[in-house]
Amino acid sequence: MQTTVTVHAPATIANVGCGFDVLGLCLTEPYDTVRLTRTDRPGLHIRHLDDYDLPTDPNRNVAGAALLALLRAVPEPLGFEVEITKGIRPGSGIGSSAASAAGAVVAANALLGNRFSPKELIDLAMYGEAVASGVRHADNIAPAICGGFTLVRAVAPVLDVVALPAPPLWVALVHPQFEVRTKDARAVLPVSVPLGLAVRQWANVGGLVAGFLTHDYELISRALDDYIVEPARAALLPGLTDAKRRALEAGALGGGISGSGPSIFMLNKDEATARAAAEALGSVYEKMGIAYHLHVGPIAAEGARVI
Amino acid sequence: MQTTVTVHAPATIANVGCGFDVLGLCLTEPYDTVRLTRTDRPGLHIRHLDDYDLPTDPNRNVAGAALLALLRAVPEPLGFEVEITKGIRPGSGIGSSAASAAGAVVAANALLGNRFSPKELIDLAMYGEAVASGVRHADNIAPAICGGFTLVRAVAPVLDVVALPAPPLWVALVHPQFEVRTKDARAVLPVSVPLGLAVRQWANVGGLVAGFLTHDYELISRALDDYIVEPARAALLPGLTDAKRRALEAGALGGGISGSGPSIFMLNKDEATARAAAEALGSVYEKMGIAYHLHVGPIAAEGARVI
Repeated sequence: MQTTVTVHAPATIANVGCGFDVLGLCLTEPYDTVRLTRTDRPGLHIRHLDDYDLPTDPNRNVAGAALLALLRAVPEPLGFEVEITKGIRPGSGIGSSAASAAGAVVAANALLGNRFSPKELIDLAMYGEAVASGVRHADNIAPAICGGFTLVRAVAPVLDVVALPAPPLWVALVHPQFEVRTKDARAVLPVSVPLGLAVRQWANVGGLVAGFLTHDYELISRALDDYIVEPARAALLPGLTDAKRRALEAGALGGGISGSGPSIFMLNKDEATARAAAEALGSVYEKMGIAYHLHVGPIAAEGARVI
Repeated sequence: MQTTVTVHAPATIANVGCGFDVLGLCLTEPYDTVRLTRTDRPGLHIRHLDDYDLPTDPNRNVAGAALLALLRAVPEPLGFEVEITKGIRPGSGIGSSAASAAGAVVAANALLGNRFSPKELIDLAMYGEAVASGVRHADNIAPAICGGFTLVRAVAPVLDVVALPAPPLWVALVHPQFEVRTKDARAVLPVSVPLGLAVRQWANVGGLVAGFLTHDYELISRALDDYIVEPARAALLPGLTDAKRRALEAGALGGGISGSGPSIFMLNKDEATARAAAEALGSVYEKMGIAYHLHVGPIAAEGARVI
C-alpha cells in the first residue's frame, strides 16, 4: 500500500468577471505542491517548505483544517505528515489557500484508495477556506479540484457544482505587488444592489455560461463584464481600468479582477493574444513603478492531481 | 408578388423561473393570427376579429406600433391592411401583446422579401411592447420571433439575444381567471436586492442555462427557483404556492409565475408528466372556486411563422 503521495495543486481564478461568488477557472501555473505521508501516529504534522511563515497548527492551517475535516469523515484513526511547498503567493487573489486545501484532500484521498468523490473533496477542502477567510466558499475550491470552468450553483443546503466545458482559452494574468486585504475587499461590497443592475448581471452570467458551452468567443467577450463588484473594488486597485483597457486593445476577449485582487486576469482566444495582453497589463504597472509578475497559460483541464 | 400573408404568432413565457427580464420560451398554443395585405394607400388600417375591444389606432395598438417602426425603417411608402385574431387573452401573462407585435412584423417581412433579420424584427416588435407596458422589453418578443428558449443578454445599447438549445420539455400551464395588473406586479418588485440573494439568483441563471445546453433535467429542476421576484409577487397570486407544490408532487421539474402572472407554468420531461402537472395545477383553482384554463404542450422550436 502506497504511503506517500505528492500532489500538484494549481492556482485558480474566482468570479471570472460577472460571476461573483459562483464562477471559477483553473490555471496550469503557478501551483502548490502538497506531499502527504501516512504515519502510524494518528493526527497531522504539518511542515511548510517555503518562506511564507504560514501557521503549521492544523486548526489554523488551510490544508490542516481540510485534512482534519477528512479525518472526521473516516472511521479509522489516521495520521499524516504534510509537507507543503507554496508556489502560489498568499494574498495574490489566485486561490492560494484553495490550492493547499484542495491539494491536501486530493493527496489524502489517493492514499485512501479514492474513497471520496470530487464533490465530497470540494466539501472537505472548503473547511480550509473557512480558516483563510471565515467563509466556507467553493468558488476557488471547485476549479482547483475539478479543473476547467466551474459554476458553484449552491453551497448550502447541498453543494451543487456544475462543470462548464469551454472552448480553448488562454489566460493573461498580472499580479501587481501590492496587498489588497480580503477584509477591505469585502468591506467595499454593496450590501444591496439595484434590481435593474442585478438583472443585467444575471443576464451576463447566463450569457457567459452559454458562451462557454456553445464555444462562442464573441458572446464570452460581450458577457464577461461585472457591473456590481468590480466597480466597487476598483478604487482598491490602482491601474485596473487602464490595464484592462490596454489588454482589450491588445485583443483580449475581456477579464477583470481575479478573486478579490490584486491580480487581474484577461481571457484570450490563443497564446499569441494572451502574450500580447500580458505585456499590455504589465506595461501599466511598469509605468506606475509597481513591481509585478505576469503569467500566461491555458485553462487547465485537470485540477489538483497526483504527480 | 404576394400581397397577402397570414402568420401564426405564438404565446410565450417570460422570466422562466429565475431569469426575470432575461429568459423566455415559446409555446405552441395558444396563438394569435395576424393577416397582412399590402395596399396602395400608404399607412396602416387595423381590424380586430375578436371580442377584446383592443384599440385599432396604429399608435395605440401593439401590432400597429411595431409596424409603424418597420415603416420608418424602409425607404418606400408602404400600406398594410392588418387583421388580427387574438387567440391569446390579453392580461394572461403569456405574451399576448408580444405575439401580436411579433406576428405583425414577421408578416410584413414576408411581404417585403424577408429583408429584416430575426434580430431586427425583435427590435421592431419591441415598439409594440412599449405601447403595452411602457417599456421596450424583449423577454417575450425574443422567443415569439426565434422560438425555443432565449436569453436577452442586453436590450441597450445593442440588442443581444442568445438562443439556448434545450432538451425536449413539455409545459403545463394554468391560467386562473383573475386579473393581475402589470402596474401592481411592477409595484411590488423590490427596488434593490441583498447582494447575497442576487448571487444566489445569478447562480441559478447560470445553472439553468447550463442545464438547458447540456440537456441536464436534474440541473434544470434544481436551478429554476426564483428567489427575488416570485416571493414579491406571490401575494398577488392566490393559489400559487399550493399549485406549484402539487405540480412538483406530480413530477414536474419546476416552474413559477409566467411573466407577471396570473398564469403559472411548470416544465416537465414528457407529455404524460405535463398532463399530470396540469391536472394538479387545475385542482387547486377548482377547489378555490376560481375558473381557469389549462394548457399542455411542448416548447415550440419555431416562433411566429407564415402559414
